[in-house]
Amino acid sequence: MTALSGASTTLTPRATDFPRWYQEVVARAELAENGPVRGTMVIRPWGYAIWERLQAALDERIKATGAQNAYFPLFIPESYLRLEAEHVEGFSPELAVVTHGGGRLLEEPVVIRPTSETVINSFFAKWVQSYRDLPLLVNQWANVVRWELRTRLFLRTTEFLWQEGHTAHATEEEARHYALRILREVYQSTLEEVAAIPVLIGRKTERERFAGAVRTWTCEAMMGDGKALQMGTSHELGQNFARVFGIQFSDESGELRFAWQTSWGVSSRLIGALIMVHGDDFGLRLPPALAPAEVVVLVVRDGEGVVEAAEAVVAELHTRGVRARLDRRSDVSFGRRSVDWELKGVPVRVEIGPRDLAQGRAVLVLRHRRTKTTVPLAGVTTEVTAALARVAGELHAEAASFARARTHEVDDVEGARQAGVEGFARVPWRAIGPKGEDQLAADSLSVRCLQATDGRLADPGEEEDLVAIVGRAY
Amino acid sequence: MTALSGASTTLTPRATDFPRWYQEVVARAELAENGPVRGTMVIRPWGYAIWERLQAALDERIKATGAQNAYFPLFIPESYLRLEAEHVEGFSPELAVVTHGGGRLLEEPVVIRPTSETVINSFFAKWVQSYRDLPLLVNQWANVVRWELRTRLFLRTTEFLWQEGHTAHATEEEARHYALRILREVYQSTLEEVAAIPVLIGRKTERERFAGAVRTWTCEAMMGDGKALQMGTSHELGQNFARVFGIQFSDESGELRFAWQTSWGVSSRLIGALIMVHGDDFGLRLPPALAPAEVVVLVVRDGEGVVEAAEAVVAELHTRGVRARLDRRSDVSFGRRSVDWELKGVPVRVEIGPRDLAQGRAVLVLRHRRTKTTVPLAGVTTEVTAALARVAGELHAEAASFARARTHEVDDVEGARQAGVEGFARVPWRAIGPKGEDQLAADSLSVRCLQATDGRLADPGEEEDLVAIVGRAY
Repeated sequence: MTALSGASTTLTPRATDFPRWYQEVVARAELAENGPVRGTMVIRPWGYAIWERLQAALDERIKATGAQNAYFPLFIPESYLRLEAEHVEGFSPELAVVTHGGGRLLEEPVVIRPTSETVINSFFAKWVQSYRDLPLLVNQWANVVRWELRTRLFLRTTEFLWQEGHTAHATEEEARHYALRILREVYQSTLEEVAAIPVLIGRKTERERFAGAVRTWTCEAMMGDGKALQMGTSHELGQNFARVFGIQFSDESGELRFAWQTSWGVSSRLIGALIMVHGDDFGLRLPPALAPAEVVVLVVRDGEGVVEAAEAVVAELHTRGVRARLDRRSDVSFGRRSVDWELKGVPVRVEIGPRDLAQGRAVLVLRHRRTKTTVPLAGVTTEVTAALARVAGELHAEAASFARARTHEVDDVEGARQAGVEGFARVPWRAIGPKGEDQLAADSLSVRCLQATDGRLADPGEEEDLVAIVGRAY
Repeated sequence: MTALSGASTTLTPRATDFPRWYQEVVARAELAENGPVRGTMVIRPWGYAIWERLQAALDERIKATGAQNAYFPLFIPESYLRLEAEHVEGFSPELAVVTHGGGRLLEEPVVIRPTSETVINSFFAKWVQSYRDLPLLVNQWANVVRWELRTRLFLRTTEFLWQEGHTAHATEEEARHYALRILREVYQSTLEEVAAIPVLIGRKTERERFAGAVRTWTCEAMMGDGKALQMGTSHELGQNFARVFGIQFSDESGELRFAWQTSWGVSSRLIGALIMVHGDDFGLRLPPALAPAEVVVLVVRDGEGVVEAAEAVVAELHTRGVRARLDRRSDVSFGRRSVDWELKGVPVRVEIGPRDLAQGRAVLVLRHRRTKTTVPLAGVTTEVTAALARVAGELHAEAASFARARTHEVDDVEGARQAGVEGFARVPWRAIGPKGEDQLAADSLSVRCLQATDGRLADPGEEEDLVAIVGRAY
């Protein structure tokens, strides 16, 4: 087993300039490009295929909780956004407004949805009449628009793709239970088990929580530069929106009550997380479950029977249910092709050339470790599947160990400030408090979440012993 | 086997008022509702689940042709739409224009995509450099906006969901072959085999074809009122867009050439087709492949062991890979529940009550034929799967026989005018011609497509013997 040299790769090293490295990976792995309107994004096939796999993993879990998908309009009457004052406060400067339609000035301007919250809640008010209509569990996959001035592909763009879930329940307890179920069984499960990204789960402080929520639960992860990325949030909304939109039901005794609600979402920014958590100086590294191709079989150089041998390996991998691709291009050099697949993060490469074939062997390259091994051609697909089975676990372990090394236990605001510069601080919440949050904010630090001391979600009674995770966030 | 009475259903009969029947089915089957902004649509969970299944069937076939999904921005600079004059002519009165973003007036107004054609082609110009980059086969699933004044849910709305495919090829022949492959292997295949809708395939006349295309291929179907619905189109674009957008490649000898292109799309209006082709006076009838639930097992009335027996049937159906659902609600009458599932078009119902259980039997109801049979409880899942296997074929045959009965062979414009009032006319194209099309247009009739006399796609040499299909279109 030998390590690969890095001679042929020309990415800016992560340690030199992380944002620039990120930009280069996005471009050179052909994940995305800037769109023609400032702040918009073209998601290229390789990037979109990753999104499709992520979306499928999330969607399956969302449906397993009983929620159903639906679709609400892109256009929202401007008046709807005035319904919830608190809400408008947050969004108004981010809105894109349509003033002309069908060649005329519109009587009432129309807003492009920054979320579908107001529309969905106004339909909930119609659909919910009786306790029999509850729980109502709806999810939407859609594009939303929030005008942004400083954008970064996947992480912050004017238009992005996301899912937003909205639910209504008969009791507070059921709503709370459901919000936590989404956090753990949908978000945490997909991120840890599919994306191989270790996440911290916890509660947002009052300062950081969604304005309309009673409680916001979050998944946070540490990126490769030590900064935090909020991966997904799940909100307990109490009866706040139900009161504003009149979402009422008659209970079993015929009494009229306001529903208890939740909302929750994740977006295409998760692709940004995938890049920043797993990427290395040679490009993207993908966990097999999200890789558009798990394996690429490269014909090093054509020669008697080489293409046929490579095709046979691909066919055998397909039989085993592995997403394998053949690269037999002869008009692009082998070196260039290897570098490209490496940039794109394909977990396993199998290389076969005339000399390999003559000796009945193939070369197996593991992207995440950048190791090459020579294996007998006859057993190559067994080797490949065995290797694939290890990739996600090893990527997860590597990211977890990186995050551990950059997380420090500290006692106070000053300690959190120091530790938060290049990682996370774990600090007693009572040593920070809202006042400490103000001080940290001056240095662009924030409390990412509050947890019980052992990393669990805190029970309602444990308010005293909470640990605050402090970091610099994207 | 007995036929169901229709006493409990209150839909307007199709024969009385087809458009009203349509509206009532959309509402009462909980498929969709009007959105708050005029012309927009809320697709409710039952309607959206049908769309998801249709989308999956199309997507699988699109990918099998080698195309990859990508995502392009919702926003298009207004200037882009001026690039192709012919194009603007067609769309300008349909555009929604964003003039304000982030709280300010924009320097250049931004258009909401009516299609992504201009953006995709401008990126194709960047991505295509060499013959090695071809063919480039890209598909997008997205929402698009075309301002409409007279709208009808699913059939014509300001915002709708669709897929649009765009490809670039090195030769005209390859592009043509690909456009036809999409028509047959993606659209015709999905419509006939998954949606159980018989379609006519053919070429559009010059009058009816897409302005930017050299040749437009179409799938057309007859709805339950005898009118035609254009189900999907696939265009050979020649080098028209390549010249406008500068999509050029250097061929193997290094010479610069314009690419040959195709584009193709289907939309959420296909849900409208599904309603109008298969629906009856009792509501929707769904082919199993598109039904959110293939089977619903109803507990007629609770009683010793009934729920358990119903649950066991559902579990056994799940084991057989059937999407089955349990309806054990005791707070809604059995009659009301039966009518609701009938409205929603669930292909098979299994009804179990205390008396059935005591006698070791269950009642099997086939939605599409409205027949009830009593079957032994022990063999019910075998009966269900056997019944399910027949539904799509029978729906298809029924629709085909309806269309056949309303299609008449005629000789001239006058004959086509008469036959086209409540169905299709098949008339020699040489008896119509562009002049005849003008005459037919005065009566809202149009040539839906041109075919060879035997219904095949016409070969280039067969121009003389073409048959025109004439009808009234949605």
